[in-house]
Amino acid sequence: MKRKPLHEDPIKHIVWKGDRLQVLDQRLLPRTVKFATCRTAADVAKATRDMVLRGAPLIGCAAAYGMALAARRNRLKDVLAAEPLLRRARPTAVNLMHALDRMLDVAKSGPEATLSKRMAAAAEAYYRDDLAFNARMATLGAALLKKGSNVITHCNAGALATAGIGTAVGMIRAGWIAGKVAHVYPCETRPYLQGARLTLWELMKAGIPATLITDNMAAHLMKTRKIDAVIVGSDRIAANADVCNKIGTYGLAILAKHHGIPFYVVAPSTTVDLSTKHGDDIPIEERSIQEVVEIFGAPIAPKGAKAHHFGFDVTPHALVTAIVTEKGVVSPANSVNLRKVLTTHVHP
Amino acid sequence: MKRKPLHEDPIKHIVWKGDRLQVLDQRLLPRTVKFATCRTAADVAKATRDMVLRGAPLIGCAAAYGMALAARRNRLKDVLAAEPLLRRARPTAVNLMHALDRMLDVAKSGPEATLSKRMAAAAEAYYRDDLAFNARMATLGAALLKKGSNVITHCNAGALATAGIGTAVGMIRAGWIAGKVAHVYPCETRPYLQGARLTLWELMKAGIPATLITDNMAAHLMKTRKIDAVIVGSDRIAANADVCNKIGTYGLAILAKHHGIPFYVVAPSTTVDLSTKHGDDIPIEERSIQEVVEIFGAPIAPKGAKAHHFGFDVTPHALVTAIVTEKGVVSPANSVNLRKVLTTHVHP
Repeated sequence: MKRKPLHEDPIKHIVWKGDRLQVLDQRLLPRTVKFATCRTAADVAKATRDMVLRGAPLIGCAAAYGMALAARRNRLKDVLAAEPLLRRARPTAVNLMHALDRMLDVAKSGPEATLSKRMAAAAEAYYRDDLAFNARMATLGAALLKKGSNVITHCNAGALATAGIGTAVGMIRAGWIAGKVAHVYPCETRPYLQGARLTLWELMKAGIPATLITDNMAAHLMKTRKIDAVIVGSDRIAANADVCNKIGTYGLAILAKHHGIPFYVVAPSTTVDLSTKHGDDIPIEERSIQEVVEIFGAPIAPKGAKAHHFGFDVTPHALVTAIVTEKGVVSPANSVNLRKVLTTHVHP
Repeated sequence: MKRKPLHEDPIKHIVWKGDRLQVLDQRLLPRTVKFATCRTAADVAKATRDMVLRGAPLIGCAAAYGMALAARRNRLKDVLAAEPLLRRARPTAVNLMHALDRMLDVAKSGPEATLSKRMAAAAEAYYRDDLAFNARMATLGAALLKKGSNVITHCNAGALATAGIGTAVGMIRAGWIAGKVAHVYPCETRPYLQGARLTLWELMKAGIPATLITDNMAAHLMKTRKIDAVIVGSDRIAANADVCNKIGTYGLAILAKHHGIPFYVVAPSTTVDLSTKHGDDIPIEERSIQEVVEIFGAPIAPKGAKAHHFGFDVTPHALVTAIVTEKGVVSPANSVNLRKVLTTHVHP
């Protein structure tokens, strides 16, 4: 099969138009490709909350653009009012908080007359950084894989979740191009099915051999087929290197450990939250149970059913083989190595 | 909450009418209660194959009735012709093979003139046995639980899967009545969603507090809530006490081990297959991938997506705390203890 270069056919899922942000409605994928237009920070907050866009790095990028939209009238008070609105949109992905902190700094560091211009430039820079981080992580990550690896991934840590080629999927794509990835098994990732709807779509577009599995098939696959790596993204990494990611990740990490399979986390440094000491201190978003008891509006449980909908879980760092950041590889994953890699000055 | 006695409101999901078998169409549950009528062994085979009825013990009961239907004209050759048809309906549940072996023995052990009568009586006896086994396992199993247990279960090993109150769910129900079960978390059990559609329905009917989770939430729940037991059924138990059950069971067993939580399997002796030495020798049914890439007809994956649909997996006996049969509790689960319990003559 022809292997497309890393940057061919990029998915244009977030497009800055100066006075508005166009975002691909990921809820409708893979069958419908439709864009939503955000003209205000409130629009961006709503799109984030409603999961029109998702993925920790992309949530950060969108929030940066949301702040730029709030600055359009060159009034600092508009920006200050928009910030908490955006911050409350999702609780777990720390990239959102990082992006808002950075944009607030920019807002406050110059005159109001240039506010709009400065904020637009800062949002663009934040986006370009994430794009560059993706490429760097893909290269660093692919180097960890052995030739002909069969890989399991979870949720969507792909192009759709970032500005560039993705975190986990970026590493997989770079690995495929280098002949290191032979086959990918995306877990469908209930309840929101990001693996089935988004990751598989990206892999098929990239021409990477992929076979969908339900989340509960991973253990059987690890036992009966050759699985060489589990590769996932992250929504927040604590100072002790515990990894918060989409619900189901923690279980996958235990299964990988049981079968002696390396477990890799790929995330930019903007996903690391040194102010959170321990993974168990990370707030776990609980979303509507409607997303569990119904699938695309079809009821799958009895009327009046109770359900849990934990959006995320936390994988203790002891289960993580390595964390791949744009600044370097944290391995073994622990607080000392994490801090060491983050404070390294990189000259790419 | 009022605790209903064990045998109140039994679910009448398989009804023998002498010249036909009525079976509840479990594919339509929980929203629609509709019966299908089987007038021939071929009808029973089709209903089994198409999962109108499912659950290893119930598949055995239905096959016994199917053989009785084939005997209606008192011709042994009809019975001999029906047997392979029924045997091929599903490959994994060994109760099917046991029921057919027993019915073949009955068919051959008397004159053709009494064939229909003998076969109907044997099918009824097989059904009554399963019902009695359920009650016995529920009592034996509940005794293993500590007071106020929170329990995770998988798939549907309930009344709908058996003639009686179920295997895993029977133990849970007896435990609830005895104050030993406080709360139940059924895993939804993709792709067929038996946990969401069937087990939760049974638990709600019985008034047992239950909260639905997606399969990938089990690990998070084990880490963050008090979970005291995982209780599942089985489709086939090998001579070495390895347990074949619905896909996802093996993963749950690993997660339970990791968290130090007891893992119980509840299954009648008709589920044990001493002719299969090792769990890995059990044929694992691969069903249509349509059931993975679509949910109730709604596509969840891109067009042309590849997928796996393993129906079952095998849990090595080392991960099993105890196997509860109607003849006694096998603990620790291994070949010696299994054979010992099976050959015990029980006087209930």
